[in-house]
Parts: sequence; structure tokens; C-alpha cells
Amino acid sequence: MDKPQIGVVGMAVMGKNLALNIESRGYTVAIYNRTGSKTEKVVSDHPEKHLVPSYTIADFVNSLEKPRRIMMMVKAGKATDAVIAQLLPHLDKGDVLIDGGNTFFEDTMRRNAELDNSGINFIGTGVSGGELGALEGPSMMPGGQKEAYDLVAPIFEKMAAKAEDGTPCVTYIGPNGAGHYVKMIHNGIEYGDEELIDESYNLLRNMVGLSVDEIADTFSEWNKGELDSYLIEITADILTRKDDLGSGKPIVDLIMDKGGNKGTGKWSSQNALELGVPQSLITESVYARYISVLKDERLAASKVLPKPEGKVSFDKDEVIEKIRQALYFSKIMSYAQGFEQMKVASKHYDWDLQFGEIAKIWRAGCIIRAGFLQNITDAFDKDPELNNLLLDDYFKDIAKKYQESVRDIVGLAVKSGVPIPGFSAAISYYDSYRSAVLPANLLQAQRDYFGAHTYERVDREGTYHFPWYKEQ
Amino acid sequence: MDKPQIGVVGMAVMGKNLALNIESRGYTVAIYNRTGSKTEKVVSDHPEKHLVPSYTIADFVNSLEKPRRIMMMVKAGKATDAVIAQLLPHLDKGDVLIDGGNTFFEDTMRRNAELDNSGINFIGTGVSGGELGALEGPSMMPGGQKEAYDLVAPIFEKMAAKAEDGTPCVTYIGPNGAGHYVKMIHNGIEYGDEELIDESYNLLRNMVGLSVDEIADTFSEWNKGELDSYLIEITADILTRKDDLGSGKPIVDLIMDKGGNKGTGKWSSQNALELGVPQSLITESVYARYISVLKDERLAASKVLPKPEGKVSFDKDEVIEKIRQALYFSKIMSYAQGFEQMKVASKHYDWDLQFGEIAKIWRAGCIIRAGFLQNITDAFDKDPELNNLLLDDYFKDIAKKYQESVRDIVGLAVKSGVPIPGFSAAISYYDSYRSAVLPANLLQAQRDYFGAHTYERVDREGTYHFPWYKEQ
Repeated sequence: MDKPQIGVVGMAVMGKNLALNIESRGYTVAIYNRTGSKTEKVVSDHPEKHLVPSYTIADFVNSLEKPRRIMMMVKAGKATDAVIAQLLPHLDKGDVLIDGGNTFFEDTMRRNAELDNSGINFIGTGVSGGELGALEGPSMMPGGQKEAYDLVAPIFEKMAAKAEDGTPCVTYIGPNGAGHYVKMIHNGIEYGDEELIDESYNLLRNMVGLSVDEIADTFSEWNKGELDSYLIEITADILTRKDDLGSGKPIVDLIMDKGGNKGTGKWSSQNALELGVPQSLITESVYARYISVLKDERLAASKVLPKPEGKVSFDKDEVIEKIRQALYFSKIMSYAQGFEQMKVASKHYDWDLQFGEIAKIWRAGCIIRAGFLQNITDAFDKDPELNNLLLDDYFKDIAKKYQESVRDIVGLAVKSGVPIPGFSAAISYYDSYRSAVLPANLLQAQRDYFGAHTYERVDREGTYHFPWYKEQ
Repeated sequence: MDKPQIGVVGMAVMGKNLALNIESRGYTVAIYNRTGSKTEKVVSDHPEKHLVPSYTIADFVNSLEKPRRIMMMVKAGKATDAVIAQLLPHLDKGDVLIDGGNTFFEDTMRRNAELDNSGINFIGTGVSGGELGALEGPSMMPGGQKEAYDLVAPIFEKMAAKAEDGTPCVTYIGPNGAGHYVKMIHNGIEYGDEELIDESYNLLRNMVGLSVDEIADTFSEWNKGELDSYLIEITADILTRKDDLGSGKPIVDLIMDKGGNKGTGKWSSQNALELGVPQSLITESVYARYISVLKDERLAASKVLPKPEGKVSFDKDEVIEKIRQALYFSKIMSYAQGFEQMKVASKHYDWDLQFGEIAKIWRAGCIIRAGFLQNITDAFDKDPELNNLLLDDYFKDIAKKYQESVRDIVGLAVKSGVPIPGFSAAISYYDSYRSAVLPANLLQAQRDYFGAHTYERVDREGTYHFPWYKEQ
């Protein structure tokens, strides 16, 4: 075997699958895990593979071709710092450390700066696609020193998913924390996509009255059109599945409705709040998970807080099509907000993000992969300085065509008592963004009244304070 | 003159007004400001007052009765740390430092712990009521060592606003950062109140078609009923005011619709996200301010993104009353979320917050003062363990009575194209909270499908993973 061209630290499922993925592209891969038995098992399970196991950090590092490329696939946080501390004494200037974990981008910024002081390159890379994506080809979002990325690019381009046109789903995102930042936004957008699908499912089931099988068929149908995406596809599949423990019921009816989270949606929202970006879709999706967790409270509340009394009436097929349109409209609002957040972040952190390229590498491999990402790429190709997706012709036309449907669905859902925080946030965002005048003039008057916070005027430059407390 | 019983550092408008307030209750007050001329001016403007000026920190500290009580009224952040560092060498064990700034509660937790190591007490206190409140009596939310609070309580109780029943609007909130935390939530709730009022104004103006004068009358009328509150009162007043620069127009029409903020709403939302609390009302209010700031983008978007085409029809008087009901309903959802957040924070930070007492001290002096805070106090008096305001009889009955109105208003607003992020968040929260089953079961299936995140089941204990990739 060749001297390994790359090493992977951490043989949990993501690390193991990434190592096997890289090996399958013609590389020899060094592997290491804190607990040696895991390393042994990977090797014994895959005897035919070009894997070089090590059982000490020193052996692992010394086994690698120079400049060394080491990919860490460990739990984000303290474990990452611990592994870096163990590796550091054995590394040479110019080596490239890669963190493929779900790391908070500010940690990546810190680590990149610290290691740079020792002459060690540090690439923080988002890896999306779950276990299967790691094995077969994920979407990858690497950030760090550009010259260090060039040293790993040939491997990354081979291991990444390929879009329909054959382009690898990986590109250099930007300096220091840019890669993990974009992965964070990817995950936040994923929260939004899931929330909108789940609201659609809830409406189809509890407002329209479809059976689980009928909803599965509906999503299958939707997946053939402009909603074509991995998440719609797996939703259709999920809804066909019956209980694996034998009750015969749809599995979805046996799953507890408490939404978990790993924190990336929360980070996206906290960062949007920090940067001053309206990011209501992702945030409402995070809150929807939080409220779902209060199952006992909800059960108690459901017995004492009344439903609406009114009945809604509609044409079934028509309302199903309107839900589809509302879902696509709302998804567009969510992506408009996500790209807006990246636009502001790019300036704030000085990253020079390429939005069209980012949409491109999300076309395959990752959880939010979808046909319509090509439309986003096209929009930024047409106008790299595009201020907001909604101003692009394709998205503007969809908004124009579908706005009445989302308004109808929001009205019906609210009248029926089916919660739709995501759809509501979408139409509120649309109506706010296209409002030449918002009632923030009254807000500024209130703030000036009680706190002397001053205001600007529409008719002249400067800052003003009104004499509220003088005799009129 | 007596030796000063308390000193105030920082003679900007809040510090000066608080010093004058304390003096007016029969105390002698030492005053100090970094720039001495400001101190001089306060003394020369108020020659008859019992104010003792100092021009060095040492003189200031030495002028005070022991144990010393020193209230800092400086810009939150670095200035606070700088003043503490200057004061510290001159203080004795048992002295009480008070921070009355708009400080982030985590900073107060840190400072309280650091100073406690030197035997110095540290009280972080929220002060709400603006300039006028500072002078005439604010609502105060002090947190820190209980024994230190007891040393300042007589002064605080005299200087605070008095509720209608004569109770001072101040109470010991809890250890370390509890006071500044509760002030942060107060401010977040204030954002929500303002947003809901501003949406109501926008609806009255742009959907119902009332004139500014008619809207002023409407708010005046509303202020006589259950919406009775300071913010409704000043809104009515604001809408009667004409341009002070002589155009003859309502001043509100000359104020730029870009909403400012000082960060406390942002902090509330970021903390809600951190603690896992659904806090959609405050967060949508923060985002509404952020989107308002994008004035140029909105102007451009208003020319290319179409309005809804449909006309809505309604009975004018009926719809005005429904907007009133929607406003009250939504306000209740916002307070339910705010008190929920304090409940979770109280456990998380180990503060033992007394929610009825908190509502009590908000009845006067502060910006969110309102008749209905008495109902919140009553609710917690009846049941100190109340899980959610919505489960109290008074609030449950309002929700029951008004839910149809908010549903009608949301439907009409969305159909008219008037943005209502706050009202929408309110009804979504209500419908989510009273849902025995939410579509998070589908979410958990999705997460288990692509990420093997596992799920709970409704019919048995434990954690499960579905064999999604096995042949069916």
C-alpha cells in the first residue's frame, strides 16, 4: 500500500463512512480512534480496503504523507480541542488539520487563528448528507486558508456528491469559519424545510382530512414537480411505512411528537438576531420544535383551551393544490431569508461568500438538495449582487402566482385551528418586505416619547426629538 | 447636611434624575461624574437640593456613610467594568455597589461573583420608566445578595413608583443576575406590546381606512377598557400630535419608519433560544424592527412585488372591535411566553423567581404598566405553580371569548396584504399549545430517516430507530 494521503481521526459512523468513501476514490487512508478496538473493527470489517490503522497518535501522524492531511470526525466542542491538543506536538508547519464535525463557526474562527500562529493550517468543513451521504458522497462546505484548501481539494472533489451536471458538491467557501457558518445556515434552512413540510402534512391530515396513505401519494406527486427534493421524497416514503413492531399502523402514528434538535437551528437564529437579519422562518421552526417538546403541557391544555367553533368549507382538490403552492412560496421566503443572512454575514465577517456557488454545492449530497437550488444558482449567475432572492424574476413570478394561495391557506388554517407558524411567518415576511411604509414610524414615536431615543424624518436629514411634554 | 446615605456615579440624564428622585425622598446624595463639569452643572441647577458633589473617586467614596451604597448609572458594558475598577481600591468589605444600567444579565452574574470574592456586595437592578420614571418613580428589579438588598431596600422602596394600592414597585428579585434578567424580559415584552399596537395601528389605517385622528380616538377609547396601559395611552397621545416643524401634518407621518433597538429584545430572544422556550412574539417583534430598517430595499421591493388582488369587505365598527380583541388576545400570548421564559430561567439559573411579585412591581412606573398586570398577580396568587398563564381562568376565558376575532383579523389582514407577524405568532402559539398532537412525529421520522437521530414512541418506553433502508 501507498503511504496514506490522508488520515481520519474518529471512527464513529460519520468518520468511518468518510474514510471508506475516500478510500473508494483510490486513496490510502490512515485511521485512528481513541478506543483502539473501534479502529480494529473497521479494519477487520473491511479487510480488502486500503486502510492503515494506528493505535497511538504519534504512529498515526507519522504514517502520513507530507504535508499531512488529517480529518477530525469527533463530537463538536471539547473533544475537538482535546484532539487538536494531542495532535499538535506531532505536526509540522504546513500540515492541514480538517474539522468535519458540526462545529459552531465561532469555535472554528478561534481554532483557525490559534493554529495559524503555529503555522498549522485549519480547515473547518461542513459535511451534510447524514451517514449515507458520508459514505456515498456528501455536500461539503470547507473554510480556512485558501492555500490549505488547495492541498485537500483533489480529495474533497472526488469524495463529494456529484450534481446532475457532474460538478462535485464542494467548493472553497471562504476564510476561517466561513465553511461551518454556511453549514449552520444549511441546517437552519433544513429546519425551515422540515417545518413547512410538517405543517403541510398537518393541514392535509387535520384540515383536509386525508388518510396517511393519501398524504403519501400527495407528497409523491408533489415530488415530481417544482417541489422535487430529498425531504419531500423521504416524507412520501416515511408515510408509506408501517410499524416495524407489528401493530399494522403507519409508523408515523406511533412516533412521539416531540421534536429533537442538535442546536444548529438555534445557532442560526441567534446569529440572525445578532447580525440584525429578519430570519423568522428558521426561528419559528426552532420554536415549533421547542413547543412540541412540552407534550404533557399540551395534553393538559388541549382539554381546557377551546378549538375554534367555525367550520371551514373548501373544494378538496383545489385546497390540496393551494397547500402545495403555499409550501413552495414559503420555502422561497425561507431561502430568501437564509441567503440574506449569508449576505450580511459575508460583509460582517469579511468572507466574500459566493452565493451562486453555495446553492450549486447544495444541489446534491445534502439534506436540503432540491431541484430549485438550480434556480438560485441561476439567479446569482444573472446578478451576483442580487439583494434578495425575491427580486429575481423566477422567484418574483412564483411569489406573484402563488401569493393568493398562501393567503387562502393561512386564512383557512387559522380558521380551522391548525397551527401554521411557518406559513404565517412566510406571508408576514413577504408583506413586510414589499411594504414601502411599515408602522415603525409609530414605534419610533413611542420610543422617543418614553425614552427620548430620537428618530429620523422622511423629509429632511438628521436626528430629531419631539417636545412631547411641552404644553400643546 | 447629613453625610450622604447613598452616592450616584454618572450624571447623564438617568443618573441625574435618579439622584434627584432619591434626594426628594429625604436623603442626602453624593454625586460623581467622570467629567466634573457635569457634576457642577447638576449642583448649580439645583442649589436647594441635598446633593454632595465630588470630583475624585476617592473623595466621592470617602464622603459616604458606611456601609456605603453606590449606584452606578453609566453606559452598560465596558464603562461599568471601568467604574468598578476605579471604585474597588476605595471600598470596604460589606459595601454595596449597585448597577442600575441596562446590563446584560450574564455580565451581572460575572460581576456579582467576582466582587463577592472581595467581600463587596453587588446589586444589579433593572430600572424601567425612562427619564420621567427615573425622576418621579421607576419600577425597579434588583438582584444580588439578599442581605445587601436589605441595606438598600428602604431607599429603593421610597424612590420607586407606587401602584394604585400604594405598594412600591420594587421587590427583591433573586440572586446575582436575576434582576437584570427580569428587566430584560420586561423589555422584550415591551417590544411585543409595541409591535402589537403598531400592527393594530397599521390595520386601522391601511385595512380599515381610518384617519390618524380617528385612530387616536380609537386608542383613547381602548385605553378606558381592559387594554388600559401606558403604551396605549401614549399611542393615543402621539397620534394627536402635529409636526413640530410646522407642516401641519400628523408627526407620525413625518417620522421615518426604521425601528431602532438597544438590544434587550435581541437578548431576550437569544436567551429563549438558548433555554428552549418558544418565544415567538418577542422574536417576531425584533425581526419586525430589523426588516423595517431595510427601507431602501423595501421601497424597491414595493415596486416589483405585487399586493394581493382581492378586496376584503367587513363591517367597520365590528372589525375595529375585533382588532381590539385580537390585540388583547395577542398580548396575553406574549405575556404567557414571557412568564414561561422566566419560569424556565428560574430553574435553570436557580433563582426562585416569584412571578406574582414580578407582575406586581410592573403595575406602575415602568413602560409596560397596565391594568391587566393585576390579573397576572391574581393568577399567581391563586396558583404559585401555574404552568402557563393560559391555564388561569381569567386568561383562559379571554382566549375563549376572543379567539374567533383574532382568527378573523388574521384572515382579513393576510387577505389585505397588511403584515401581521405578531398577531400571526400569537394565534400559532395558541393553536400549537392547545394541540394534543403536533406534526413533530413526522419531523422525528425525517430526522431518524436521514440522520439516525432515533425517536420515542407513544405506546412504549425507550428510544427507537426504524429500519428505513431495509427492503420493505
